[in-house]
Amino acid sequence: MPQISSLPEKTVERLSEYRRTLLRCQKQGITHIFSHVLAGMHGITAVQVRRDLMLIGFSSDTKKGYDVKVLADFISDILDSQQPMNIGVIGMGHLGQAITKYFNSKGLKLKIVAAFDIDPEKVGTTIDDIPCLSMDDFEASVAELDINIVIISCPTSKAEQTVVPIVNAGIKGVLNFTSKPLNFPLGIVVENYDITTLLEKVAYFVKEQENSDI
Amino acid sequence: MPQISSLPEKTVERLSEYRRTLLRCQKQGITHIFSHVLAGMHGITAVQVRRDLMLIGFSSDTKKGYDVKVLADFISDILDSQQPMNIGVIGMGHLGQAITKYFNSKGLKLKIVAAFDIDPEKVGTTIDDIPCLSMDDFEASVAELDINIVIISCPTSKAEQTVVPIVNAGIKGVLNFTSKPLNFPLGIVVENYDITTLLEKVAYFVKEQENSDI
Repeated sequence: MPQISSLPEKTVERLSEYRRTLLRCQKQGITHIFSHVLAGMHGITAVQVRRDLMLIGFSSDTKKGYDVKVLADFISDILDSQQPMNIGVIGMGHLGQAITKYFNSKGLKLKIVAAFDIDPEKVGTTIDDIPCLSMDDFEASVAELDINIVIISCPTSKAEQTVVPIVNAGIKGVLNFTSKPLNFPLGIVVENYDITTLLEKVAYFVKEQENSDI
Repeated sequence: MPQISSLPEKTVERLSEYRRTLLRCQKQGITHIFSHVLAGMHGITAVQVRRDLMLIGFSSDTKKGYDVKVLADFISDILDSQQPMNIGVIGMGHLGQAITKYFNSKGLKLKIVAAFDIDPEKVGTTIDDIPCLSMDDFEASVAELDINIVIISCPTSKAEQTVVPIVNAGIKGVLNFTSKPLNFPLGIVVENYDITTLLEKVAYFVKEQENSDI
């Protein structure tokens, strides 16, 4: 992913995580939170939390800790676009369906507005009110529905076929869940993330831990 | 995730990604690959690739580039445990089902051997030959099936309830896909990963890109 902003990628990830935790705290009626408590909930140090918040210019730490609502809103101003971001999901297999249902239940500002598939049996159906459209009409549908970002959850063998339609449709951001890392022209933000990597990482550190226990 | 090994987390992630690319190259009959080609396939620099491989002590770069099979095997020796790692999936909703089907189609050394749920309608069913067992029998099933790692894909509201059973069952590694970061005692490797973070990250960089274009 290109570093086109002054915020490091990892900081953006943590801000997204802090915000979810803050919103959960708010629901539970918690009004203030200390940096070390927020840090503990994420398994990191208070120094890290304070450093991240300093990077975005947030400094209203009080004796009671951070104001939960003020901090959540502050992070939202940094992360969220003022225009809504519409999202399309390419590939309505199990992963695509899971992702669609998952995000739609979250009440995020990011909204999945359509799914796309090449399978005629899936095209024309809906999943949680999200229509499944044909990849043949991808470009027209993206324009009509004002889609900015796509999630690729098709089989890895089909991943490369999505690149040209995505570029032609003027998509600005891509989250690729297939095993094939995809390259796009400069100006399109791409995050390649095969969840296998996460599992292999956990397995590696378990192995290392076991070796160090011997 | 605790840094219990000398390899940085990001290097472990990239090694996992390199290996998948190398195995794909091997299938296509490619025997050698230059560091800059491997780098280009992952959208990173050749320097980064060479630095990662130096960290694991791989240095057999030839005039034809790296030997694809030798490098894939070398990375496997680093990443993989000699004992098989058995995996359980907690929560057989859409995400759990997608993850189970996804990993099982991949032919990884990491093997999903069971799923767990609290819903009596799901317990006793199978998904791609993986049995769905009851969370009530979690500890006994983990011992019987020799499960080392669990993937948590239950609803976020139920995430915290999985902690005690996981600790009691002696699980060594946890990949948590819910929105609630979970803390485990030292000695258990935990990766908290809400995929919402990835989507919010892409959206943020798209927004920044658009702002810089103005």
